[in-house]
Amino acid sequence: MEEKRIIQVKRDILSANDSKADAFRRTLRERETFFMDIMASPGAGKATLLLALIRQLRALGQSDLAVIEADLESDVDALKIKEADVTSIELNTRGVCHVEMGMVEAAFEPLESMNLDWLFLENIGNLVCPAEFDTGAHCRVMLLSVPEGYDKVYKYPPMFSLADALIVTKSDYLPLNPDFKMDALREQAAVLNPDINIFVTSARTGEGIEDLAQWLMAKRFEALS
Amino acid sequence: MEEKRIIQVKRDILSANDSKADAFRRTLRERETFFMDIMASPGAGKATLLLALIRQLRALGQSDLAVIEADLESDVDALKIKEADVTSIELNTRGVCHVEMGMVEAAFEPLESMNLDWLFLENIGNLVCPAEFDTGAHCRVMLLSVPEGYDKVYKYPPMFSLADALIVTKSDYLPLNPDFKMDALREQAAVLNPDINIFVTSARTGEGIEDLAQWLMAKRFEALS
Repeated sequence: MEEKRIIQVKRDILSANDSKADAFRRTLRERETFFMDIMASPGAGKATLLLALIRQLRALGQSDLAVIEADLESDVDALKIKEADVTSIELNTRGVCHVEMGMVEAAFEPLESMNLDWLFLENIGNLVCPAEFDTGAHCRVMLLSVPEGYDKVYKYPPMFSLADALIVTKSDYLPLNPDFKMDALREQAAVLNPDINIFVTSARTGEGIEDLAQWLMAKRFEALS
Repeated sequence: MEEKRIIQVKRDILSANDSKADAFRRTLRERETFFMDIMASPGAGKATLLLALIRQLRALGQSDLAVIEADLESDVDALKIKEADVTSIELNTRGVCHVEMGMVEAAFEPLESMNLDWLFLENIGNLVCPAEFDTGAHCRVMLLSVPEGYDKVYKYPPMFSLADALIVTKSDYLPLNPDFKMDALREQAAVLNPDINIFVTSARTGEGIEDLAQWLMAKRFEALS
């Protein structure tokens, strides 16, 4: 009984969220703002990768960008992004384990007056729940850091299923992780999600960041044209 | 309205879960089975630490132990534990982001005929949601791996607040992470949770595993006496 009740409430909420997400996606498309959602476990390197990516995009002439920084309670990452001189909005979920559309819309309000080419969302550090909630993004990527291990596809399938790209981070740790089977990861991810794009990156050495930025430039062009 | 409805349903569910957890804790106490819940992000090294800990406990003469292996969908970790010749029950949450009491009770059923001194739960890889659900354990520990970074206390406060111990894993990565401020982590964790015990460990080098096992032996004695 209890369970049936919560399943119904959850269904209502998810369906309302999906409609709002579609509307938000359309609005941003009209504004020519490309919106990307970045999801991963805690500590996979979302903020660090984002900063490296933004540097690369700036080098490619992209300067009108902003970040929505989601966190359960703190402003640790929002400050990190601000320090890099990037417009950053703190989205505090007050303990909620994922970001949903009401939060995205509220976070976007102070950005409405800006002409943004790029909008990034650093989602809550959680490889499970964010997969259920469409955030209105044109592109959703997930990070998996080398120290986490390669065997995550079958353990967290919803996230791998929906991601447009799997970005393997901290590749500079590979020499320390001879057990990290990159080929197995690629294979398992492709079985679950044949359209997934895989990038191997390191914000420390710069590996893969340029390829990722180029792919995103193409993705943006595709989404907005 | 929607929100109020879900908050009420959630409150009902959490309170029912708490009562069941207390009953389960009492039952296990009467059976002299010490029950420990292990929580962490994906890839923090739960299964690997657990195997190192079990080896250490066996060396201390503790042999009647079993593991409940929670996973969203797969049996990856359950197989890993079985290979080490440890009784292991696969708890498949079917995509649910945490473990709750109904699941624990069902997983315990096949173990009821055994005389266990130790029961371990490897919770879902998630630093957010498991904090809300009491699993009936006598002791709840959280892992934080060095590659994840030290700045997680303010970002995931519920988990740090409830844990009896913070087990820093993969300490062999410390030389590669000069930015990992162990003192700051200790301070921040202690501010949020003055009773938290902190262990710095590496399953690779064996650092800290013996201390952790000794602490658990004492914790078991305390809980069951």
